[in-house]
Amino acid sequence: MTAEEIKRSDKAGLSPGTLMYVGDKKVESSRITVIDYDESGYLEKEVASVEECFPFKDTATVSWINVDGVAEADVIGKLGAKFDIHPLVLEDIMTTTQRPKAEDLGNAVFVVVRMIECDRDGTGLTADQLSLIIGPNFVLSFQETPGDCLGPVRERIRGGKGRIRKLGPDYLAYALIDAVVDNYFFVLEKLGERIDGLEEDLITNPRREILHEIHLLKREMIELRKALWPLRETVSGLERMESPLIKKTTIVFLRDLYDHTIQVVDTVESFREILTSMLETYLSSVSNRMNEVMKVLTIISTIFIPITFLVGVYGMNFKHMPETGWRWSYPVVWAVILASVGGMLHFFRRKKWL
Amino acid sequence: MTAEEIKRSDKAGLSPGTLMYVGDKKVESSRITVIDYDESGYLEKEVASVEECFPFKDTATVSWINVDGVAEADVIGKLGAKFDIHPLVLEDIMTTTQRPKAEDLGNAVFVVVRMIECDRDGTGLTADQLSLIIGPNFVLSFQETPGDCLGPVRERIRGGKGRIRKLGPDYLAYALIDAVVDNYFFVLEKLGERIDGLEEDLITNPRREILHEIHLLKREMIELRKALWPLRETVSGLERMESPLIKKTTIVFLRDLYDHTIQVVDTVESFREILTSMLETYLSSVSNRMNEVMKVLTIISTIFIPITFLVGVYGMNFKHMPETGWRWSYPVVWAVILASVGGMLHFFRRKKWL
Amino acid sequence: MTAEEIKRSDKAGLSPGTLMYVGDKKVESSRITVIDYDESGYLEKEVASVEECFPFKDTATVSWINVDGVAEADVIGKLGAKFDIHPLVLEDIMTTTQRPKAEDLGNAVFVVVRMIECDRDGTGLTADQLSLIIGPNFVLSFQETPGDCLGPVRERIRGGKGRIRKLGPDYLAYALIDAVVDNYFFVLEKLGERIDGLEEDLITNPRREILHEIHLLKREMIELRKALWPLRETVSGLERMESPLIKKTTIVFLRDLYDHTIQVVDTVESFREILTSMLETYLSSVSNRMNEVMKVLTIISTIFIPITFLVGVYGMNFKHMPETGWRWSYPVVWAVILASVGGMLHFFRRKKWL
Amino acid sequence: MTAEEIKRSDKAGLSPGTLMYVGDKKVESSRITVIDYDESGYLEKEVASVEECFPFKDTATVSWINVDGVAEADVIGKLGAKFDIHPLVLEDIMTTTQRPKAEDLGNAVFVVVRMIECDRDGTGLTADQLSLIIGPNFVLSFQETPGDCLGPVRERIRGGKGRIRKLGPDYLAYALIDAVVDNYFFVLEKLGERIDGLEEDLITNPRREILHEIHLLKREMIELRKALWPLRETVSGLERMESPLIKKTTIVFLRDLYDHTIQVVDTVESFREILTSMLETYLSSVSNRMNEVMKVLTIISTIFIPITFLVGVYGMNFKHMPETGWRWSYPVVWAVILASVGGMLHFFRRKKWL
Amino acid sequence: MTAEEIKRSDKAGLSPGTLMYVGDKKVESSRITVIDYDESGYLEKEVASVEECFPFKDTATVSWINVDGVAEADVIGKLGAKFDIHPLVLEDIMTTTQRPKAEDLGNAVFVVVRMIECDRDGTGLTADQLSLIIGPNFVLSFQETPGDCLGPVRERIRGGKGRIRKLGPDYLAYALIDAVVDNYFFVLEKLGERIDGLEEDLITNPRREILHEIHLLKREMIELRKALWPLRETVSGLERMESPLIKKTTIVFLRDLYDHTIQVVDTVESFREILTSMLETYLSSVSNRMNEVMKVLTIISTIFIPITFLVGVYGMNFKHMPETGWRWSYPVVWAVILASVGGMLHFFRRKKWL
Repeated sequence: MTAEEIKRSDKAGLSPGTLMYVGDKKVESSRITVIDYDESGYLEKEVASVEECFPFKDTATVSWINVDGVAEADVIGKLGAKFDIHPLVLEDIMTTTQRPKAEDLGNAVFVVVRMIECDRDGTGLTADQLSLIIGPNFVLSFQETPGDCLGPVRERIRGGKGRIRKLGPDYLAYALIDAVVDNYFFVLEKLGERIDGLEEDLITNPRREILHEIHLLKREMIELRKALWPLRETVSGLERMESPLIKKTTIVFLRDLYDHTIQVVDTVESFREILTSMLETYLSSVSNRMNEVMKVLTIISTIFIPITFLVGVYGMNFKHMPETGWRWSYPVVWAVILASVGGMLHFFRRKKWL
Repeated sequence: MTAEEIKRSDKAGLSPGTLMYVGDKKVESSRITVIDYDESGYLEKEVASVEECFPFKDTATVSWINVDGVAEADVIGKLGAKFDIHPLVLEDIMTTTQRPKAEDLGNAVFVVVRMIECDRDGTGLTADQLSLIIGPNFVLSFQETPGDCLGPVRERIRGGKGRIRKLGPDYLAYALIDAVVDNYFFVLEKLGERIDGLEEDLITNPRREILHEIHLLKREMIELRKALWPLRETVSGLERMESPLIKKTTIVFLRDLYDHTIQVVDTVESFREILTSMLETYLSSVSNRMNEVMKVLTIISTIFIPITFLVGVYGMNFKHMPETGWRWSYPVVWAVILASVGGMLHFFRRKKWL
Repeated sequence: MTAEEIKRSDKAGLSPGTLMYVGDKKVESSRITVIDYDESGYLEKEVASVEECFPFKDTATVSWINVDGVAEADVIGKLGAKFDIHPLVLEDIMTTTQRPKAEDLGNAVFVVVRMIECDRDGTGLTADQLSLIIGPNFVLSFQETPGDCLGPVRERIRGGKGRIRKLGPDYLAYALIDAVVDNYFFVLEKLGERIDGLEEDLITNPRREILHEIHLLKREMIELRKALWPLRETVSGLERMESPLIKKTTIVFLRDLYDHTIQVVDTVESFREILTSMLETYLSSVSNRMNEVMKVLTIISTIFIPITFLVGVYGMNFKHMPETGWRWSYPVVWAVILASVGGMLHFFRRKKWL
Repeated sequence: MTAEEIKRSDKAGLSPGTLMYVGDKKVESSRITVIDYDESGYLEKEVASVEECFPFKDTATVSWINVDGVAEADVIGKLGAKFDIHPLVLEDIMTTTQRPKAEDLGNAVFVVVRMIECDRDGTGLTADQLSLIIGPNFVLSFQETPGDCLGPVRERIRGGKGRIRKLGPDYLAYALIDAVVDNYFFVLEKLGERIDGLEEDLITNPRREILHEIHLLKREMIELRKALWPLRETVSGLERMESPLIKKTTIVFLRDLYDHTIQVVDTVESFREILTSMLETYLSSVSNRMNEVMKVLTIISTIFIPITFLVGVYGMNFKHMPETGWRWSYPVVWAVILASVGGMLHFFRRKKWL
Repeated sequence: MTAEEIKRSDKAGLSPGTLMYVGDKKVESSRITVIDYDESGYLEKEVASVEECFPFKDTATVSWINVDGVAEADVIGKLGAKFDIHPLVLEDIMTTTQRPKAEDLGNAVFVVVRMIECDRDGTGLTADQLSLIIGPNFVLSFQETPGDCLGPVRERIRGGKGRIRKLGPDYLAYALIDAVVDNYFFVLEKLGERIDGLEEDLITNPRREILHEIHLLKREMIELRKALWPLRETVSGLERMESPLIKKTTIVFLRDLYDHTIQVVDTVESFREILTSMLETYLSSVSNRMNEVMKVLTIISTIFIPITFLVGVYGMNFKHMPETGWRWSYPVVWAVILASVGGMLHFFRRKKWL
């Protein structure tokens, strides 16, 4: 299993609909698992070849065929042919830089969403494209890499709890997207904790790395927003699609999902504004600290430079300097020095620098 | 009674419609109070068990059933079953991080708003979710914690003053939301006073803490806006809902409420702009003060450094320095020093630094 | 006559429609004047009690009843009862922090606009709420304080010049709003002059107070915008209201008024952008000047600090310093000093600091 | 011919529709020229009195009556009466601070656009209002001052080239507005050259005046935008007006004009963004240069201040300073000095300041 | 072949529809190539005179006539006459500063898009206008210069792979626009790499040139956006055009193209935000570094200036300075110096400057 980045431009010039993987997580061989269920039972198995899952197309039960790894043009092509999917849609599945979207294909509904996950060290985000094909009695799902946030849905199917085993593929698709959106809440909570931590530091200990971390968080927000804004339209598109494949009973769940999506978008926007405000505050506090540093320098310099000059005067070696011979010269010079220092301190106090 | 934060992500993976509290103000046991009234009389009591309030569902009088504490899945579940509420709505009631919204459930209207209150020390804001179910002759209200801003509505019912006892549950719901919005005015006045105080300081005494306080106020504005923008749609949604549960006579009050909501939103926007302008002004004034500090340093340095050099020259111990033996050397050096100082002062005056 | 601020929150909890003054210009007793006119003549009088103006409700002539001071709940209440005005509208009239708006009340049209006036010393703005009730043959107007910008309309009625005496109460209302908008032009011209003055100063003499003045002007723009944006909708709302009280002949005038309103809004937006640009320019010019100050300091320090060190060396009192006894030491030191100064000057010239 | 500014506020209080010039380019007497043409011929003359152009109203040929100078209420009033124009429209023509707009007057179409021209010294912009009345067989045009950018249209009429002589007054009006928009391209090219010049300077020679020039250009962009945004609506308004005066054949030209207008608006927006980016770059580069200045100062000070202290020590005149008598003291001090300087240089190199 | 810039303003005043080249890449003579194909075969040739390609207008096969160089009014005019194109459209083709747009001409569809290419040295962008005329069985394409990104389309026609040979001119036009959009991905990837490189530098090695490069990239984004925003409308315009020339089978491809266009626009917007964030970070990091420089200066100055003063005192040549004769003076002075330095270091540590 090797991973290398394949850019969209590598594909420029090919005929539209040509199947070629585009992305940075190329997984050589696809792994296909099938979960087939109805109210009375369920079956879960990993198939060895793509042809093994063809029979599930026409069973009365709901079949969820999940493909991990979308780089094998051959596998995707065969699945597409069997399940009657337009080549442009297959191309979209293999090009893992899609915007989230929902499309009515007539005989099926095509949905693309992006699964966002925090890196294990908590300092970055990874996005995985999840493509769904919702048919009359099946759902095909395509992911770039194995490992996802859909585990809870599988558990619910296995456990037979809740509605999921009683309802059709549209509810299954809803449950999958809902799991993805639930994961956004998780990611946002993690990001929120990082922001709160930074904000704490901003006040008590304005370290220099804060700047870099704010910039990183801002970039992550830009990434998140790119994935989330179109998700809003995607979900509301599904809700208003009027495809016979999306049943009325599912619409109310989609509306709920739409509310969650908007909440996620709102939170990202708030985070962006908070980060901007933090950056301004940081900048101002750097200015403030510089001001303080300058004040110390200025106070010290302004006090000592003049009196250093004064003692320099009497360090001159002229033969004819009457003061040098006088009895009280030295104490008088000290008096002048102390008066000058006192005057300066008074001046700084009046300026509120002390 | 204990309070701990339960995050949305803790619930990730549960089947949609599962009842589990999400929020940071978990109150173990719910307290239920009922106010039942019509034009001729009213009854107010606290019920011990949820079943006690079931009879109020079918009375001809208007019944307001208020639940303080939404963490008991059992209580919320039973109420939901009795009053015929969709599980997803019950889930929304228990997830206290909802966006404000109004939904027509067919047999009832569901409204979520957020009650914002200033902390007792006047430096922060707390938000409590208020969920309303408006039925044909009852209003269910759900709050996270006991203690709210709805006291005046209770007083009006008790006193029998105004229209409230003569009108139905839709007017009661309006009165409750109106009380929430009235409280926003109170909160905004408090924030306005803090902003005015800061602005006063900004000019007369630009303390360093101003920066932190502006940042805090900005964050509070971001929070407020998140609660207020959707409120606008919520109220206008109620106004245009065309549900038989919202009577024509109430619409005119809702329009008035809508005007108030917009006024609140306008004020928040103005505050945000004023805070931004204050931050810019603060930044500029820090720059200004730094400029002044630098000028003092530069003036002192520029005057004294050259003449210190001069007296250093005649501090050298060379045997062959003809000037040291001359009669008028010392006065001449003083003359040069004074001329140099005078020249510098002239230079600074021309540069308008003095 | 006393004035004290009564805030909106002081009223929180009262039943909607309760009449209580909210604002900061409480005028104890209302002063009511009536101007009654038709094409053939006019009558102008100040009435002592509110009942005196009741007969004008049903005359065939156009009656303009103006109330200065809206703090007397009694007066407003009686007028409302006689002229058949909804309590919520009366409440709006007495709450002098309304957004501009136009509402069709069925038997009348209700309009709120804000009269903005420059303070006498030209450094601030005051806003007065003007509420209009347009009936079939009367216009009621309510102002917070005596003294307004409606004098020219009165003059036109008295003089019988123009259309005003020939047309109905809708034209009168138009004329009043037009006078208010005309006054905005006056206020904007004053503000424009202040901005131009500041801009002049920004270039020729960047005083420190500019910062404060820009901030003040920005705040005034925020205030103005808050009053003006909704005015746009208000006027266009009137234009499209389709109330029989707004005659077709008046629509063309309202369209003209709408153009004026947009022009005012445009100007405010331009002023805001100019102020933002001025602030940026000011900030940059402070940076620039600081840069210049720093250069002077650096040049002086960089020239004199090294040579001061040099003369310090020969000020040491070591017994064994061969140079001190040499014949040409002193001139050589001077030569070194001059060479060093020359080198520095060359360096600064190359860096373009001189 | 005298010019003085007459402000909009000078007119406040006059009855709407009163004819009084508002603007800053008052031209005492109006100059009226007529161009009358059809496919077979054309006639061009300057008329002495306004009555002379009345006969052109009813000729079958297309008559273009151009009025330079709109300050004579008498002339405008007579023309308005003869050509049947609403007094409010005449008022708009004389108030030369209008927003661009297109209005269907029923018997005519009224269009206002703004002609923008570069000042002769290339450092500012002047705006002139051009008002057009398009009638069934005439076009009235009103300009504030003589001298315009409409020469090419006159030439085309005279030369009889192109379509202009074959088509009606709507095409003439289109041609006039098109000439105005063409001139915007010219103005924008001039501004683009100034921006490019500044940008060149920003990199190679960041002079201080750049700041002022960027600010001026920004102001000009604000002015331009104020004239251009409404122009967009104006042209698209004309295109969709459905007045019988705008023939179908002209619509295609108007669509083309609309494209041009959008292109102009796009360019202005790009220029605004480029200017903002330039200002940020300038600010950053000032900071950068200040940083460099500070480094020089710090390097020099940090190297010389410690060693100056050291030589100061041995300048003290204590009787009991053993080192002063030692044989190798002087060379040792020099060694210490050189080591210290070397250490500092190493420190600065490590910090990448050198 | 010469190239000189011809500005739009050079054309001001000419009659609309006059054919004159506007742009900066004037290519004297146009080069015309024809590719004629159907499912069974294809023909490719370069024609010597414009008349040679006339016969292709009426063949049943699909003919793609490509014109490189649009400066020859004669060639464009003849083509326009033969293929029945409105003079205003021809003018648009020759004015190579068009906004992207799609227009239904009735007998044809007119599309303008902009081909963006990276300069060979990777530091700038060049834009070339591509105009398409889609007729019933031909596509005319016009480019400013020879050399384009349409090679892959030609290859597909030659190879007869994919659908292209089986479908009509609308699919050909789609393929051409798709090739242009595919090239945007390529350009954006290049820009993305430059941004990533800069970002790397921003953290590890904040060179001064970064500022200039960020500014350049921002300008390029502004340019790109100007070309891309209207492209969005262009493609969606084509999709909804309802022209019989755009067949149903092509619509699905256009929808796909629309998705790609939005993705490109999204990416440009993200890049803009990232660049803004980088500039802010850069500015803050310059401030940070300046702060550090100032701290070094202040620490050194604050430590040494006072002790330099002290040793200056004992460098004075007064006869009556009792301390100079004392036995332990010199060690005491050293003790004072060390104590002072220690105190300062303690002070700086407490201030966290060390």
